[in-house]
This record gives sequence, structure tokens and C-alpha cells, in this order.
Amino acid sequence: MKMKHKGILIVVSGFSGAGKGTLMKQLVRSYENYALSISMTTRKPRPGEEEGREYFFVDREEFEDKIKSDGLIEYANYCEHYYGTPREYVERQLERGKDVILEIEIQGALKVKEKFPTALLLFVMPPSVAELKKRLEGRGTESKEVIEKRLKRACEEAEGIEQYDYIVINDELEECVKEMHSLIQAAHYAPFRNEEFIEKMRKELAALG
Amino acid sequence: MKMKHKGILIVVSGFSGAGKGTLMKQLVRSYENYALSISMTTRKPRPGEEEGREYFFVDREEFEDKIKSDGLIEYANYCEHYYGTPREYVERQLERGKDVILEIEIQGALKVKEKFPTALLLFVMPPSVAELKKRLEGRGTESKEVIEKRLKRACEEAEGIEQYDYIVINDELEECVKEMHSLIQAAHYAPFRNEEFIEKMRKELAALG
Repeated sequence: MKMKHKGILIVVSGFSGAGKGTLMKQLVRSYENYALSISMTTRKPRPGEEEGREYFFVDREEFEDKIKSDGLIEYANYCEHYYGTPREYVERQLERGKDVILEIEIQGALKVKEKFPTALLLFVMPPSVAELKKRLEGRGTESKEVIEKRLKRACEEAEGIEQYDYIVINDELEECVKEMHSLIQAAHYAPFRNEEFIEKMRKELAALG
Repeated sequence: MKMKHKGILIVVSGFSGAGKGTLMKQLVRSYENYALSISMTTRKPRPGEEEGREYFFVDREEFEDKIKSDGLIEYANYCEHYYGTPREYVERQLERGKDVILEIEIQGALKVKEKFPTALLLFVMPPSVAELKKRLEGRGTESKEVIEKRLKRACEEAEGIEQYDYIVINDELEECVKEMHSLIQAAHYAPFRNEEFIEKMRKELAALG
């Protein structure tokens, strides 16, 4: 099938501990057609984080200017820091035909879907709750309270799953990356993402009649 | 990703000359997980057609009994003959986890979607109108009038494309069969086709809280 496509904006949400980050990095590494959106934040860089890799680090004033100039697709305020998605990078990549991946929680995901109705919403889940618990505990870096908070948060996030187009079950990484790729490829063939192609065919058919 | 699934009912429509039939046969031959639904009709078998392969051939009375006993998923009347989809075979195959493929035009497709809300609707198109014309003419068996009628019919069918989940562009057969398979695989991961799995996970998460 050959159709010229603008890229699709792909929003990835999911439980903390489901392995979203690794999955997305591996996807971008394995296939050429993806670009990872980088968020902007007012929080300070943590050790090991690099400007323009994990985040664009800006001050409060710069962030609020971005908000005013409609330069963000969505933004939110967590723990007294802003986090948002710069619009320009996303639109440039989509225009070039890249599928742009964005990691974001559900409220943000729904805001993105409003502004980009052709966005594809993916929800990453572990194969089971037992596995989720194991992964959270296995990190060994989190206290019991933090793990419980995350499980509670997962419980809340699970309420919104029906708002997503597909669930992605992260069991075995390589397998999951392939399936995620193939879900995204499939999305390119939804009629509402191919209005131009369909209209062209209709006009040509009408011209014959 | 491992989830236990019931099969999906797949409805295939598309322009005459788009190659639906070949595509579906090749799909069933290439992958294990499909079953082809066989229609029931009151028209007489044509030379070369076999009972239970192209159609189940029945008389008018038997067909109307099937209608009365709700034994058909959908049916229609063309040129004074009934055509319909027997329910029993479809449901048995879905129960066994097979994805059941059904070739049918748009009115029938929409009726099926009403009765089976998780049905997947695929619309097969040629890569261009020029190619469609070439294929119809290339058969060499059709008169000019018949070809024009088919193109006119295509024009009408094209009105309904937005009702379908995906368009399938039949350019190169093998390639297209692979892509059709991967669209169907993707459909298995829509949340509304995984209510049981999601509910189970929600319950388990809630139990931890």
C-alpha cells in the first residue's frame, strides 16, 4: 500500500512500572520513522539529565511566555513545576512524515486528542498486576510507601483505558516493540487519516460517470 | 502480548475489481487463524460452484425459515434472490478463537456491526481509479456497459468509506495480505475488544489498595 502520509502523533500513557520509557526508546531505535517529542519543564535537571535529551529546561517566565503564545500542545503543573509539549518540534516532524511519540498521562492525552483529532492513543500495561508489583519492587530504589502510591495511581489511571485506541501489553520487550510498531502502522489506514486520498478517488470516480 | 481472545468478525467490502475475493482466499491460506464465512443463497449454482464452498444453496422456503428463526446475521434480496450469512457457523468459529471473514456490501456491513459491535470493517480499494478501470477492462469478460455500471456502483460505494475501520489498498497481493493480517491483529488490542482483561486488571489493582 502506498499512500503519502503526514505523520501521526502518538500519545503513550500507562502505569508507572509498565516500561513505557524503555519501550519508546527501543521503538525509535528499531525503526526509522519515529521522532520522540521532548518535553519542556521548569524543574531543575537531575544528575545525568541533559538539556534537550530528557527535557528542555527553562525558567518559569520562559514557560509562561510559551503558554501565552500558544507554543505548547498541552501543559500541566505537578508539584509546583510546569511540564509541557512544545508545539513547533512536533508539527515540524509530522510535516516531514515522521510519527511523533509523546509520553504523557491521561488528562494530557485527552487534551492532545482534542487539538490533534488524528492522534493515536496507546496505553501500556504490564501482562498482570502481579508482574507490575514485581517490577516496581524489583527496581529496589523505591520505598514501600512509594510503591503503594504508584499502585494506587495505577488504579486511578486504569479508569481511563477505554479512552485509548489500543492497549499495549509489555511482556517481552522486543516482541512488544514490534507489536507497537504494527499498531501504529495499522492506524495509518483509518479512513479519517486518509481524507485526501479518499476524496481524490471519489472525484476521479465521479468524473468517469 | 498474550491475551485470550474470542475471534473477531471481519467484514470485507470494497469496489468490484479491487480484488477482495483473491485477497481473502490468500489471507486464509497464509495464516492459520482465519475462517471464511460462507453465505446462503436461493439462487441456483453456476457451473463450477460447489455446495458449501461458494455458497450454501437452499430453496426459498428454507431461507425464509432461517430468517424467522433468527438464524442469519444479515440477509438481503438482490435480483429476486436471497443472500444471507448463517449465524451458527460464524458464532462457533468466533467461540473457537478464529477470526471470521465475511464479504458483504455496505448495508450488510452496517447491519453486522449493529449485531456484533466488536466487528472490524475493512474496505478494499485499488491503488487508483485508473488501476480499477484497467482491472475491470482487463478481465476481458465484461461488456463496456457492465464495466460502466461497476464504476458507477464504485462511485456509490465510495460514499460509505468513512463507516469502515480501515482501508486496505490492494496494490501488490502478497504485500496486501500481510498488511491486512496486521490490521486485523492490531484490532485485537482495542480496549473495547478486551473488556474482560481490563476488568480483571482493575479488580486486582483495587484489591491491592
